[in-house]
Amino acid sequence: MSWRSRRARAARREAERSWEDARRRARAGQVAGLRALLRGADLRLVIDELERMAPAPRAAAFRILPRDTGLRAFIALGPALQAEVLEQLGHDEAIRLVADLDPDDRARTLDGLPDEQAAVLLEGLSEEARRETELILRHPAESVGRWTTPAVVSVPADRTVGDALELVRTTGSAAETVYVVPVLDELSRVVGVVSLRRLITADQATPLSAVMREPILLRADEDQEVGARLVRDHGAVGVPVVDDEDRLVGILTVDDAMHVLELEEDEDTARSASRARLDRPYLGTSVLQLARGRVLWLLALVLAAGLTVTVLDRFEATLEQVVTLALFIPLLIGTGGNVGAQSASTVIRALAVEEIRASDLLAVVGKELATGVTLGATLGLVAYLPATWFADSSVALVLSLSVLVVCALAASVGALIPILAERAGVDPAVMSAPLITTVVDATGLLVYFLIAGLVLGI
Amino acid sequence: MSWRSRRARAARREAERSWEDARRRARAGQVAGLRALLRGADLRLVIDELERMAPAPRAAAFRILPRDTGLRAFIALGPALQAEVLEQLGHDEAIRLVADLDPDDRARTLDGLPDEQAAVLLEGLSEEARRETELILRHPAESVGRWTTPAVVSVPADRTVGDALELVRTTGSAAETVYVVPVLDELSRVVGVVSLRRLITADQATPLSAVMREPILLRADEDQEVGARLVRDHGAVGVPVVDDEDRLVGILTVDDAMHVLELEEDEDTARSASRARLDRPYLGTSVLQLARGRVLWLLALVLAAGLTVTVLDRFEATLEQVVTLALFIPLLIGTGGNVGAQSASTVIRALAVEEIRASDLLAVVGKELATGVTLGATLGLVAYLPATWFADSSVALVLSLSVLVVCALAASVGALIPILAERAGVDPAVMSAPLITTVVDATGLLVYFLIAGLVLGI
Repeated sequence: MSWRSRRARAARREAERSWEDARRRARAGQVAGLRALLRGADLRLVIDELERMAPAPRAAAFRILPRDTGLRAFIALGPALQAEVLEQLGHDEAIRLVADLDPDDRARTLDGLPDEQAAVLLEGLSEEARRETELILRHPAESVGRWTTPAVVSVPADRTVGDALELVRTTGSAAETVYVVPVLDELSRVVGVVSLRRLITADQATPLSAVMREPILLRADEDQEVGARLVRDHGAVGVPVVDDEDRLVGILTVDDAMHVLELEEDEDTARSASRARLDRPYLGTSVLQLARGRVLWLLALVLAAGLTVTVLDRFEATLEQVVTLALFIPLLIGTGGNVGAQSASTVIRALAVEEIRASDLLAVVGKELATGVTLGATLGLVAYLPATWFADSSVALVLSLSVLVVCALAASVGALIPILAERAGVDPAVMSAPLITTVVDATGLLVYFLIAGLVLGI
Repeated sequence: MSWRSRRARAARREAERSWEDARRRARAGQVAGLRALLRGADLRLVIDELERMAPAPRAAAFRILPRDTGLRAFIALGPALQAEVLEQLGHDEAIRLVADLDPDDRARTLDGLPDEQAAVLLEGLSEEARRETELILRHPAESVGRWTTPAVVSVPADRTVGDALELVRTTGSAAETVYVVPVLDELSRVVGVVSLRRLITADQATPLSAVMREPILLRADEDQEVGARLVRDHGAVGVPVVDDEDRLVGILTVDDAMHVLELEEDEDTARSASRARLDRPYLGTSVLQLARGRVLWLLALVLAAGLTVTVLDRFEATLEQVVTLALFIPLLIGTGGNVGAQSASTVIRALAVEEIRASDLLAVVGKELATGVTLGATLGLVAYLPATWFADSSVALVLSLSVLVVCALAASVGALIPILAERAGVDPAVMSAPLITTVVDATGLLVYFLIAGLVLGI
């Protein structure tokens, strides 16, 4: 939250206060109060409140929420709470809620539920809804196809603007989106796209072929994040999704694209801190669940840190002779870690937005090496004088030289590892941070003691 | 990039190959080739190519890009390259390009340019465009108002659906968006909103008041990220923006909302690695610019790391007696740092999506403390046996106990600092990581040596 004016803050606080009041009244006055509470509120506050409720009142709330709000809030809850809500609602109501969802939301919801629960709900859907759902789930996990709504209006290319508009008028209410209308040839292949705005502002007798644009298309088996980025880059309200033979599958809408990007951001944040993504809201997650999502990474990191113990063990004699060397160990490896993290974060971001490619390896590593030397020289100089307060000037010299080398090393490794990961087809964000830390910590200590050996003559 | 099928990968690689071919031909065959290259390509590839070009050919490319592609690509370039392009294009062409931008894009572009260059361009605009731009720039930086397009179609509440549709038909081409139509009372206050879809599917004689929905509104002085999140949460194509008195200012469109979220994500990534955000693409950034964006943070962190030197200096006598204690220093503070980062990342995320609020301080810190104890007990137990290979069992015991305490400490501090920052009105992501590291490293060492003193009797 980079900025917020005092006035906006005050308005927000006031909204929160009146919400608190309403909540208190709702808790005293039961259903009528709850209804008033949920109807008036901002969607974000509704979701927030639902996440904090106990399972039974949460399900009760879904019974009285206006349809649209309820569906949006349900989608926002995430798999674990969705399963709870459907469980609490009971068979018939759960099926009604699931049936009301847009086809792609429905498919992803069912996919996130325990198998048995999903099977029962799928069984309860109409035959058409069931078939639709199964078609969507046939696309690979995390592909564009999983987010593609088949409920769209499309028109044959040999019609006029007026025909197309009439089709939108009569069938548009049931479609998830009508703002992007794919134009099809006789084999259902997408040959163009026309916006609803163009249909309205153009002359009604114009043939569609004269107003349609060349379509930007997405393949259903493309990665969901690539698809979402495409929608964002083009500032599109939706992009037609096609199969191998360019036949229309549906549309990836901008709100689904935003949802994908949010999920991916969440995943990246979690990864960069070496933890698992939470599948339920924080306050609804138990201590054991939190610990479970973090412990494996920590164990791996502790194991990797064993390398630093081994290096130090090898230089124990040196340490015994010049114990002041130990004073600077945290500073040295901390600095190396920070420089490595800066490089890695820059390079991972540049790879993600395709400013650089895996083939730029040499240029990027070279640039980071030069940056690391620049930073290392600066920091090494700065550290020298203060270091002499705690140790001999020769030890301070060892520190300064080590800072220089470690920064250069950390910056190059921080660039190298993400690019190698990308080349190997692994997400650069997954393994980079821990690997970089391990490599930089251990080799940094090695460098430190080798330089100490040279300078101090041990 | 979490998933990508082999087929999608192959299609992508093929597109890149044909692009490389086209580029080679363009470089040999000049303008005609360049035109072919830029016209056929995916927008992402066009932007990518523009970022890698030298200033002169980059400006030349803008002369031949199709209008829409050119404008989208220009917006994506970022302030530094935008200034270069406009400089290269020369006075008249630069003004034409700036005039073609949507009003809010134009205002933000001018705001990002050097003052003198912006003044010259502003001077060259039509009086109406200039006034429009100045109005947008009157909103505070990073507020919703800066992203609000005034070019929208709105209708008085006393008209019919048919009237509204006719207005869209006649004035819609000049508007940035027509899919969300604000409905106004006689004082220009927004009293409702109606989607273009509803206008088309409803009966033409219906009064607007019967089909309009209660509007979700954004205040122009609200923070841009809060606004963008609102658009995303509601899955809206656009949300009306109003002033203090609920009078229409314009619409925040979904593509601008996505752009805001991208910028904020970029900023968060940079912050979490303690570096400045790049204002030009990676390959176009010099080593000195890269170093400058990172060096201040590193200096602060090195300074803070001085605390660890001071702590170790105080326990130098202990270290001299039991030099094996030094072996585990990197492992101990590394583990503390990782646990702290996990907590902080979880809490910062939960604050950002409003799953928790600053008032939940006790609940959150308590939960993280419990999680830290769980993790610390696990890791402490795991570390004990391997530690005995390198040191006495009493030193291994010191390590295990210290891991327990440090994890508990790191998890609580990692939760506490972001929440305190939020309470103080500071962005929790800015200061958290370095502060947590400093606190945890120094107190962690203190804990280690205090426990060593107790257990070893020194």
